[in-house]
Amino acid sequence: MFLYFRKAVSNLQTLSHLYASHLSLHPFTGSPNALYDPMNYIMSLGGKRIRPLLTLIGAQCCGANPEDALIPAHSMEVFHNFTLVHDDIMDNASTRRGEPTVHEKWSISEGILSGDNMLIAVYQMLLDYQHPSRNEIMALLTKTAREVCEGQQMDMDSASLDEVSEAYYLEMIRLKTAVLLGCSLQCGAMVAGAEKAVCENLYDFAINLGLSFQLNDDWLDAFGDPAMTGKKPGGDIEEGKKTLLYIMASSHFNIDDLWSKHIGQERVQITLKKLKEYELDKKLKAVADEFHNGCLHDLEQLQSQGVNTSLLLELCDMLQVRRH
Amino acid sequence: MFLYFRKAVSNLQTLSHLYASHLSLHPFTGSPNALYDPMNYIMSLGGKRIRPLLTLIGAQCCGANPEDALIPAHSMEVFHNFTLVHDDIMDNASTRRGEPTVHEKWSISEGILSGDNMLIAVYQMLLDYQHPSRNEIMALLTKTAREVCEGQQMDMDSASLDEVSEAYYLEMIRLKTAVLLGCSLQCGAMVAGAEKAVCENLYDFAINLGLSFQLNDDWLDAFGDPAMTGKKPGGDIEEGKKTLLYIMASSHFNIDDLWSKHIGQERVQITLKKLKEYELDKKLKAVADEFHNGCLHDLEQLQSQGVNTSLLLELCDMLQVRRH
Repeated sequence: MFLYFRKAVSNLQTLSHLYASHLSLHPFTGSPNALYDPMNYIMSLGGKRIRPLLTLIGAQCCGANPEDALIPAHSMEVFHNFTLVHDDIMDNASTRRGEPTVHEKWSISEGILSGDNMLIAVYQMLLDYQHPSRNEIMALLTKTAREVCEGQQMDMDSASLDEVSEAYYLEMIRLKTAVLLGCSLQCGAMVAGAEKAVCENLYDFAINLGLSFQLNDDWLDAFGDPAMTGKKPGGDIEEGKKTLLYIMASSHFNIDDLWSKHIGQERVQITLKKLKEYELDKKLKAVADEFHNGCLHDLEQLQSQGVNTSLLLELCDMLQVRRH
Repeated sequence: MFLYFRKAVSNLQTLSHLYASHLSLHPFTGSPNALYDPMNYIMSLGGKRIRPLLTLIGAQCCGANPEDALIPAHSMEVFHNFTLVHDDIMDNASTRRGEPTVHEKWSISEGILSGDNMLIAVYQMLLDYQHPSRNEIMALLTKTAREVCEGQQMDMDSASLDEVSEAYYLEMIRLKTAVLLGCSLQCGAMVAGAEKAVCENLYDFAINLGLSFQLNDDWLDAFGDPAMTGKKPGGDIEEGKKTLLYIMASSHFNIDDLWSKHIGQERVQITLKKLKEYELDKKLKAVADEFHNGCLHDLEQLQSQGVNTSLLLELCDMLQVRRH
């Protein structure tokens, strides 16, 4: 019976519900309303809540009660949402998840200020967290926060660069998105008091998972079977998104010129033909596979370290990252 | 000889130099440059460095070596400069201390992001600070940071309010500016391991000092002797600044109407006549005096608690806040 209970609480959905319940019980409160309403608004827009899930997974797979990791889990989601509010201003985005962005619904000033107050709330939350792992969690999050800013700046810088190298692009997305995944998972392990080597492997696993997921997503967008992905093929190409594929293409043919001459499905078809001509479908797959192999390697290491990797495998499935 | 040395290091100028030296030895470093250059730029624009000075004073007057308080002192100045960068965007200000603001010299995006990274750097600094007072300093700064955001939002809200009460205005400037002064001074005392009652009195002293200084400054601007202040009289009135005097005036006569009809020295002269007619010069002085009396009361308390108040008195002189 006890074992059955353990198994029941160990699946991802249960952890997701655990966090959703914590989130709904901990809205931001304070005045003036124009400061606190945008904070609750952005948190209410949903999303996969992958970062708090990673923290709860990290705690559970290292043997802690995931409930003990709810505060750090929440702090990761609040930090992530802080970056969304500020990034949306920088990217001049008017919608997020189908709803108006904070600065669109309120103003740029209120976007800046409520974002600031969310970052402050992250530290408030962690300072109130009475747990031996508290200080090392704050240190890892602070290092990560700095890296996320560096990644965002690299992204902004890239708009005015003549040429963006593959290495530059990969480092940029590592900093902009992957390090917070690594941080989120590792913080869970820290709550469990996991040893340094385990923490490092979990961090690396999440970094590799994040990059693998993103590149796999890019590949599917261009070359995936619409019947399988359920998406119109070449959406990124149609939108002119500067993914790794765009960067790879740039070193083989003048993709900017091609995109300036063609739009819509015509652009998609001509671009896809060119990409395949230079075997960039295979090349992108090879890069994605590198990170995927990194994940597998990390999982092996973690298994040998006695970590229960079943949740991590379930996570790979959820994110549709191939496991073999 | 030893006593002489103690006296020499105890004056404000020596503490100012101590901080200036620490500041010059600790520039922000990192890449990309577009993230870190604005951080060093805003820090280089100068100012009175009153907040780090308060921290060093707090440490010294409670018996600690001020050098031990340099990191918290620096974190207060960096925090203050973070607020300047973001406030300048919100206030649409193009110059600060005679130089272009960060978002003017770079862009709004770089202003937002480098400001964020400064707030993160504040926590990085404090997390690296190996001192028993570290956690309570972080807790006080975090509470203060939240209050500063609330004050800034109250300020923004006030633009669309039909009427701003005196109480609203005073609470707004307490949060926007005074609480960080209180925090800065108290953190110095915390470094010295001062007891709670001393910490609280120092905090209150700095709050009262800040409000007294600001209201005294407003009074001098309108009613001070130009030969003494060295400033053109009625500068705030000419600029249309919404000080406490403006709010007091609003409940007696239609100051907006008056200002819409007159500009320059004519506006100043007519407004001053009206203000004196309603004895608002005396009323403002009375409010400033309340906070000034608060300062004196706090100083008495601190003296009775065995705190060396000579630096605090020197500070009152430096800020030209009357001591009696």
